[in-house]
Amino acid sequence: MLKNFERKKSEDKDALNAEIKEIREKLLAQQQLIRDQKLPVLVLIEGWAAAGKGTLVKELISEIDPRFYNVSSPAVVPESEERYPFLYPYFSAIPENGKFMFLDSGWMESTVRKYLRHEITKEEYKRRVRQVNEFERQLRDGGYVVLKIFLHIDKDEQFDRLQDLVDWPETEWRVTPEDLWQHKEYKRFLEAYDEFMEKTGGCVPWHILDGSRKKAAVRDAMKLLYTRIDQALAAGRYVGEPFEEDFPLQKMPKLKDVDLSPAIDGEEYKKELKKLQKRLSELHNMIYRKKIPVILCYEGWDAAGKGGNIRRVAYPLDPRGFDVRPIASPLPHELNRQYLWRFWTRLPRTGHICIFDRTWYGRVMVERLEGFCTEKDWQRAYNEINEFERQLTDWGAVVLKFWIHIDQETQLARFTERQNTPEKQWKITDEDWRNREKWPQYEVAVDEMLQKTSTENAPWYIIESNDKKYARIKTLRIIVDALEKACDEAFKRQME
Amino acid sequence: MLKNFERKKSEDKDALNAEIKEIREKLLAQQQLIRDQKLPVLVLIEGWAAAGKGTLVKELISEIDPRFYNVSSPAVVPESEERYPFLYPYFSAIPENGKFMFLDSGWMESTVRKYLRHEITKEEYKRRVRQVNEFERQLRDGGYVVLKIFLHIDKDEQFDRLQDLVDWPETEWRVTPEDLWQHKEYKRFLEAYDEFMEKTGGCVPWHILDGSRKKAAVRDAMKLLYTRIDQALAAGRYVGEPFEEDFPLQKMPKLKDVDLSPAIDGEEYKKELKKLQKRLSELHNMIYRKKIPVILCYEGWDAAGKGGNIRRVAYPLDPRGFDVRPIASPLPHELNRQYLWRFWTRLPRTGHICIFDRTWYGRVMVERLEGFCTEKDWQRAYNEINEFERQLTDWGAVVLKFWIHIDQETQLARFTERQNTPEKQWKITDEDWRNREKWPQYEVAVDEMLQKTSTENAPWYIIESNDKKYARIKTLRIIVDALEKACDEAFKRQME
Repeated sequence: MLKNFERKKSEDKDALNAEIKEIREKLLAQQQLIRDQKLPVLVLIEGWAAAGKGTLVKELISEIDPRFYNVSSPAVVPESEERYPFLYPYFSAIPENGKFMFLDSGWMESTVRKYLRHEITKEEYKRRVRQVNEFERQLRDGGYVVLKIFLHIDKDEQFDRLQDLVDWPETEWRVTPEDLWQHKEYKRFLEAYDEFMEKTGGCVPWHILDGSRKKAAVRDAMKLLYTRIDQALAAGRYVGEPFEEDFPLQKMPKLKDVDLSPAIDGEEYKKELKKLQKRLSELHNMIYRKKIPVILCYEGWDAAGKGGNIRRVAYPLDPRGFDVRPIASPLPHELNRQYLWRFWTRLPRTGHICIFDRTWYGRVMVERLEGFCTEKDWQRAYNEINEFERQLTDWGAVVLKFWIHIDQETQLARFTERQNTPEKQWKITDEDWRNREKWPQYEVAVDEMLQKTSTENAPWYIIESNDKKYARIKTLRIIVDALEKACDEAFKRQME
Repeated sequence: MLKNFERKKSEDKDALNAEIKEIREKLLAQQQLIRDQKLPVLVLIEGWAAAGKGTLVKELISEIDPRFYNVSSPAVVPESEERYPFLYPYFSAIPENGKFMFLDSGWMESTVRKYLRHEITKEEYKRRVRQVNEFERQLRDGGYVVLKIFLHIDKDEQFDRLQDLVDWPETEWRVTPEDLWQHKEYKRFLEAYDEFMEKTGGCVPWHILDGSRKKAAVRDAMKLLYTRIDQALAAGRYVGEPFEEDFPLQKMPKLKDVDLSPAIDGEEYKKELKKLQKRLSELHNMIYRKKIPVILCYEGWDAAGKGGNIRRVAYPLDPRGFDVRPIASPLPHELNRQYLWRFWTRLPRTGHICIFDRTWYGRVMVERLEGFCTEKDWQRAYNEINEFERQLTDWGAVVLKFWIHIDQETQLARFTERQNTPEKQWKITDEDWRNREKWPQYEVAVDEMLQKTSTENAPWYIIESNDKKYARIKTLRIIVDALEKACDEAFKRQME
């Protein structure tokens, strides 16, 4: 705790230098192992303004090959990231396997500062604490080394340092009004830091270092880093255990019990399509103005009609306000990061609609069935995905998930038609036929997915698509209803 | 020209609908060929406010599989992109091979608007015109289909449309003060649009469509798109011819004539290193405040000492204000775009330092020697790279390029040492030995590169690195001198 932190005794300079030299060499030798074992390392340095966070980062990276680390700082997060969820800049910054990322302050500083400034409510603060814990656990369970350091100085020391900086024209600009405010409110910050560290130390512990002893802090940070990595290398890549959290789940039918006969006749289809598209277009305007982000997720059997369905939804939308994100096999730099990273970095901004053509649910379908991840990985994923989606809906997003459903006979008929129609042949590949053979295994996986991830805040909808027209109308109606409701609720909040 | 544009006669609605249906089907069938031949298609829609650009884009994409197009609009370019060069958002937006990108207004609107608002000078306007021509030619020469459409309406029509929009609460927000100002200044805009189109139609022509005839405009745009793509498919992927533009080049020695004996003794090295690093640290503060972007490019023989050199430059820098970008082999999504794309998207923001560990010069070295591009491609690249770097220095960047030079014997000695030192073995691969065998071919390519791309604004420096310490000091001194000069010049401009 900061409030009973005891300042260290001054140490002998030469002995310290010798120690640092030694640990530096050990870190240097360790780098090859990090690369070989593809260990990703995330180091978060938080602490008081003027405590020396930047200098500490500089020392930590000084012996690392520049190809293997990155440094990021919320000070350089563009304002536009304010239009993304809280964790967005941090999840975006996670390192690739075999590399380091150093964060010069991060989720703690941004949360505490906003909270003390009353820019976020108590409820939002609590949510953030929960999200931070989820984030850190997900990284740990995904095999990341996460090291969190808090660099501490007392109020007098901060006074002296700020004064030194302000007195020199070359460094004066570094002291922001925020920093001076922090100094004024030192006591409140101290309590808030302690509270935050207490609430977020459960999964990944905090280490408080004495920033007034610069060299000793460097030595201590290097030792911590070396030891944490050494343990991780010795233990082999960590794979987190599955666990179940209590999400409010909706009951979903088994796929085999879904009645696929619903259909719509051509005239009614045209009429309904026109009406719903018109309404969707109006709602797009409204959600844009109310800055509500919308995330539409499409999964379904091959040839179920996802593409055509998406086109009917996209048609009435203003192209400036939506994106379709087709999800193919992960690229190397995506495979080299926690599996949700490539979705985090594709999120829409507030007021925008994002349509995912296939999604993060690949983790519990193709990756599960093809053995692209371990059993623990995909079993853990249900919960991680529920957390991810709750982070999105906490942010204010409308999240709707569609399983576009057909039966095996319909798929066979559509495959055959594609095969026999020259303009459609590109749509059918050998892989589609191979996947078809695994229909029973997929059905088990999809059923489990629907049971375990249809939360109240981000529900699944099974869309009967033997009749594609029926499927389109049903999907459009669900979207329109959800957006109406979201606009109403936004208005209610405005009126409160 | 807009000023003598003749409005089209109204056409029969049914006939038009039939035509649109027909061309739609042709476009649909064409998509497979675009994918097969991996043709990238960039469509720019410019035009008056309320002319119907968004609606036109919507019609053009309505039949395209959502996996194969993207829509972008400067309206959604975050403000943070203001801190990048003018072409940054447009170069970043170019499509992958086999895909479409639709831009809902772009480099024309942003240039004309800023010019008429006196936010950019006449000189900057001229530079932008030149840069646009370079950009479009580079895309064309790289095999891109670029289609530019201007959607025209006259002043009365614009009045009616703006009024319609303003009268409805759902659409009122779409009319910006900028749009109203444009309407007031209609005549000035008309002349400015004409001037811009005249000056940028040389390489990729403009097509003016009558926005007051909505259906006809859709038909015409679809026809243009279909025809341009059809021609490109028939001709096969276009590879631009090399050409020479008159850049002010500095005379460079041949590598074999470089005296590699310079060395520095250990004591002097320490003294100089400390002095130069201290000064660099101060200068980093200054360029940060003056918002000068700095781009340092490292190329050189394997084992020449690039990594250690970069570390000595990076050490005194504030980690929040610089990045090292290691350039490895291009990833699939990078290979699928014009070769400069992966560098454009890695540029620093103003005030930041970016160190490229290997660069775009791979085009005229490894890609040339390994046959990864055609002879015309790498021959054209000298000029394209000179243009690229001029675009960077026009923006205000300091661009310095270092060839870290050693002789063959030194390389052999260092390779052998790496091979025999367990901690260094990861640094040496079979590929390094293979590249070593190609030393003579590389030397020819490097000599040609140095001769053809050492411009006054972005010069090459040959860094003698048989003695690595000497090399580091020389590099640091060049950087320090260049940054001093840049700060002086920035101050002079401030005083003008």
